[in-house]
Amino acid sequence: MTSVVKNDALVVFTPSGKRGRFALGTPILQAARSLGVDIDSVCGGRAICGRCQIEVAQGEFAKHGISSSTNSVTPAGEAEGRFATRRGLDEGRRLSCQALLNSDVVIDVPASSQVHHQVVRKPHEAYDIVIDPVVRSHFVEVSEPDMHEAMGDVERLRRALREQWELQDVTCDLFVAQKLQAALKVGKRQVTVAVRNENQIVAVWPGLKTRLFGIAVDVGSTTIAAHLCDLTSGEVLSSAGIMNPQIRFGEDLMSRVSYIMMNAGGEEELIKSIRKALNELVVSVAEQADVSIDDVLEMTVVGNPIMQHLVLGLNPVELGTAPFALATDNSVDVLASEIGIQINAGGHVYALPCIAGHVGADAAGVLLAEAPYKREAVSLIVDVGTNAEILLGNKQRMLAASSPTGPAFEGAQISSGQRAAPGAIERVRIDKETLEPKFKVIGSDLWSNDPDFAEQTKASGITGICGSGIIEVVAEMFLAGVLDPDGKIRPHDSIVSDCIVPDGRTSAFVLHRGQQEIRVTQNDVRAIQLAKAALHAGAKLLMEHFGVEKVDRIRLAGAFGAHIDVKYAMVLGLIPECDLEQVSSAGNAAGTGARITLLNRAARAEVEAQVRSVEKIETAIEPKFQEHFVASMSIPNGDSSTTAAQKRGRRGRRGGRRVE
Amino acid sequence: MTSVVKNDALVVFTPSGKRGRFALGTPILQAARSLGVDIDSVCGGRAICGRCQIEVAQGEFAKHGISSSTNSVTPAGEAEGRFATRRGLDEGRRLSCQALLNSDVVIDVPASSQVHHQVVRKPHEAYDIVIDPVVRSHFVEVSEPDMHEAMGDVERLRRALREQWELQDVTCDLFVAQKLQAALKVGKRQVTVAVRNENQIVAVWPGLKTRLFGIAVDVGSTTIAAHLCDLTSGEVLSSAGIMNPQIRFGEDLMSRVSYIMMNAGGEEELIKSIRKALNELVVSVAEQADVSIDDVLEMTVVGNPIMQHLVLGLNPVELGTAPFALATDNSVDVLASEIGIQINAGGHVYALPCIAGHVGADAAGVLLAEAPYKREAVSLIVDVGTNAEILLGNKQRMLAASSPTGPAFEGAQISSGQRAAPGAIERVRIDKETLEPKFKVIGSDLWSNDPDFAEQTKASGITGICGSGIIEVVAEMFLAGVLDPDGKIRPHDSIVSDCIVPDGRTSAFVLHRGQQEIRVTQNDVRAIQLAKAALHAGAKLLMEHFGVEKVDRIRLAGAFGAHIDVKYAMVLGLIPECDLEQVSSAGNAAGTGARITLLNRAARAEVEAQVRSVEKIETAIEPKFQEHFVASMSIPNGDSSTTAAQKRGRRGRRGGRRVE
Repeated sequence: MTSVVKNDALVVFTPSGKRGRFALGTPILQAARSLGVDIDSVCGGRAICGRCQIEVAQGEFAKHGISSSTNSVTPAGEAEGRFATRRGLDEGRRLSCQALLNSDVVIDVPASSQVHHQVVRKPHEAYDIVIDPVVRSHFVEVSEPDMHEAMGDVERLRRALREQWELQDVTCDLFVAQKLQAALKVGKRQVTVAVRNENQIVAVWPGLKTRLFGIAVDVGSTTIAAHLCDLTSGEVLSSAGIMNPQIRFGEDLMSRVSYIMMNAGGEEELIKSIRKALNELVVSVAEQADVSIDDVLEMTVVGNPIMQHLVLGLNPVELGTAPFALATDNSVDVLASEIGIQINAGGHVYALPCIAGHVGADAAGVLLAEAPYKREAVSLIVDVGTNAEILLGNKQRMLAASSPTGPAFEGAQISSGQRAAPGAIERVRIDKETLEPKFKVIGSDLWSNDPDFAEQTKASGITGICGSGIIEVVAEMFLAGVLDPDGKIRPHDSIVSDCIVPDGRTSAFVLHRGQQEIRVTQNDVRAIQLAKAALHAGAKLLMEHFGVEKVDRIRLAGAFGAHIDVKYAMVLGLIPECDLEQVSSAGNAAGTGARITLLNRAARAEVEAQVRSVEKIETAIEPKFQEHFVASMSIPNGDSSTTAAQKRGRRGRRGGRRVE
Repeated sequence: MTSVVKNDALVVFTPSGKRGRFALGTPILQAARSLGVDIDSVCGGRAICGRCQIEVAQGEFAKHGISSSTNSVTPAGEAEGRFATRRGLDEGRRLSCQALLNSDVVIDVPASSQVHHQVVRKPHEAYDIVIDPVVRSHFVEVSEPDMHEAMGDVERLRRALREQWELQDVTCDLFVAQKLQAALKVGKRQVTVAVRNENQIVAVWPGLKTRLFGIAVDVGSTTIAAHLCDLTSGEVLSSAGIMNPQIRFGEDLMSRVSYIMMNAGGEEELIKSIRKALNELVVSVAEQADVSIDDVLEMTVVGNPIMQHLVLGLNPVELGTAPFALATDNSVDVLASEIGIQINAGGHVYALPCIAGHVGADAAGVLLAEAPYKREAVSLIVDVGTNAEILLGNKQRMLAASSPTGPAFEGAQISSGQRAAPGAIERVRIDKETLEPKFKVIGSDLWSNDPDFAEQTKASGITGICGSGIIEVVAEMFLAGVLDPDGKIRPHDSIVSDCIVPDGRTSAFVLHRGQQEIRVTQNDVRAIQLAKAALHAGAKLLMEHFGVEKVDRIRLAGAFGAHIDVKYAMVLGLIPECDLEQVSSAGNAAGTGARITLLNRAARAEVEAQVRSVEKIETAIEPKFQEHFVASMSIPNGDSSTTAAQKRGRRGRRGGRRVE
């Protein structure tokens, strides 16, 4: 009998299930690589970055015919021990670059060790994000200069990247070349470089640098929000929001554009102001996460067309008047320093493309985050801000439009309206018998008729009605018969209730009597009617273009979408008919879009292609929009098959003359 | 009989000889284009740029069977008349975009109308330059924005370039996008853009802009020279030179590197100083040519490795000590603003690649201008500055090295040495009988024994000996027997001549007695011997590597090469043996190299490829170099086949101990 000495062994990786036989002594990392198992490494197998951690499964694996134990790989040697001492290594974890194959083994690759792992989505988000950022760090050992081989250090670095990381044809920015030799000296020829798009060296540090960061920014007209992410884990480490300082040049976008048109140097002022705010946000999120701004290598930005233009230093005046010509509808990818953003000198800003003159990069972000173009079902996605941006479509075809809702949904132009903040009424119920209202304010869980309500709201007071509150109160007024379908408040003398009071030639509904009376006037109702008519008409217009009577699902993006009770949106006719189960909030989808492009580079090409192919509908020049608009004035909604002229005769004109 | 009405005609273009039949009414420009005849146009056939001028030949052209006359094309119409009135049109010239084919015709395309015409070379230059600059201007009409077609103005511009100029996939820099809409407004949707590499829009102007400019710069340790060129005609419109202001940090390169090593912030000081000088030069050449610096779109730079590094903001300290590691040996192509050069905001700087730590981009410029790699003959090309850069080779193989000649050839380290300037002795003859010298100084054509000499040199005086003068006087001293082959000046008491005088323990040769005595000392001769030995040894080393005993031709580049009398260079043994007819000056070949890359974009790839493939020889680590050096000390040259040790025994060591 001859005894067979096996000189190879079977390795099975979980959770991928990939398997193969390798010579004894093969590093597990190498086995993983040759099987295409996704294990990260920054240091290239030198036991210093700790990215390639795995766990050796223990037990009998009947399915694979393997008995796997910690002895199936070689024990930790000196290098791994040094790493464990210096950086710590959890119980059961091994560095796959150091663990060599001893016998058949099952290896578990934890998600944190995978290069392209997914970040699990948050409640409102439509999809997981696959981590594959545009910038990655690579640790390299660069050969010593040698008079026998005349060669620049940049070229030695490029050779090292080719040989140690299989990165071909990598260019090196001049400002990196300017720092390279000093870094090589300090790092004793070992440096970490940040490589962008696998082809451009944008930063260099002496020695090992494992973590790089990025910031996703959502630039709203009112607030700017930023999220700092670890570009490797995808984790959001800190978030911050500040008021858009441009508010001092005008509350709404058009007044800011006017400011530029009326004031010499106004353009520079607005640009400077927004960039200053962005830089403050960068510092704020970086400090919160205890990260140096020099380690921030990438920023992605979404915003409406005017904000996007100003961040990029593009004059937005053309966006102020028809034909609303964008300076560019392409994405912009520039060195952060070129637009005055202070992150790493090699850091870049990627600004998502605008869809059209009224449909911004924020809508592009929503489009990417929601990806309705991946579904068979026809989605209607609405992002309500000062304008409503509306996306409609499915796998076959996508349409986009902007509808001029005005800021009523945000509580502006409403007599007691205010922004969502403690003290603002956000929920309302009206007793159908007594017409007595009750409400909740932000900052308290209690209804206003609760005995403890006064105590609980003492600090904030009851200060006004926010966007979701105004929707509810108008819807409840309609449901309680206080409003007729035309939106007229019942005359105060037609009904016995303290809540309906005379208000000039019309009536008003009193929601709260206190230090500050909060009432809903006929003008408030009209403002909401105009806003909801615009939104509904925009949706109807797109549905008509698409050729559907009914959409399969509706997603409400933005803060408005997150706080509104979809039932009331339906009662009021904000959104077209849809199975209520299929109406949901998309959260801050625009910001999510920015975050996706920060963490996944393929998403950039995706959003660019989608933005290019989406059909842009300009409501301002569509005659049917006016018809839908007029029809949508009534509550919930009228029938636009009757002609616009008839409607006008019956209900009066939009604006100007009061609808009686 | 039927009469045949011809509806096409024959067009023959000269000088290309290209010919073809075209429908009557075809614009001559269009006919030219479809035949591949090279006719320029910036405005795209709109009769406004005037670039497409042709002449209609008159007479019988038997060879072509054509009778051609001015009537063979349609007469000038309104548009052409407007052009002639506004811009002028020479007698006999027509705009080929306006002249339509009437009957058979011979069309002469003047060189100035050709896109890729050649600039005839100057006396010293090796080749003509084919004009094909990296940046070109294109006049376009951009469609009006249109709400029915949501599209950014950048994208409209790109479409116009695609449709009107067949430029595909052109990118637009952000800073151009920032200016685009304003330019479109002023230009009533007609703008001119500068397109770089046929794929990048780098500048925009309202209306028509026909002329763009570039500057070629040669950054020497001592002087910096700039030439402003019309990027279309290739013509040098103005030139200027200034002293390198870094001289205050050290006369020679190594003392500047020391300055950086010894002084905190020294690097920034030197970088700032060189860039300031470059900006002054830009202003100077632009003003001379009455050109706005905003119309300068491109700059090319050559210099030795240390200068090249400083211009690019790269720390040169590694170049101060072995192993002389370049930060990069690649060419660098950056926005001018990135290195503080003030030309158009979209202007770029192209810095030619360095060949090795001691062989700079100036040598790369020489390599490109002289193109020895295009010849079968083996060329030796020498550029003498503080170091001598030596190129040797042919089609098959090129070698490069730097040899440490020191600055003696520039008149430095010579007791009466000075830079080439009025008053400097540049020509010397010594009477073999009387040993009486005569000389010429810069600024006068007369020999010093001419009766009018004193009068003519009164203004300048006789102030010293320049580089070519020192070569001649030493060579003449040798030919007259004042020097022996070992370089020893004959003892003053061994000969009856006033011209040989005691000078410490040695003798000196008196060239001029006057207010200021000008003499050649034993030390001066030694300095020249050391310099020429280094140069000769470098050439021999490369010849040895290449495997030739004798080169076919020698080109002497730089100011030194232009002024030196090659006969004396040979007498002294500066250069290896060669047919004297085949030794010539290459002029400022480094600067020519910069100018070629300014005017011809293919030349950039060419010089990069050549620099990569040239074999770099490092004299410092070649033992044979020392042998050749020692052998080359004698006049004209010794034989290095005897061992270095023997030589040392016979002639003493290099440096340190005096050679006796």
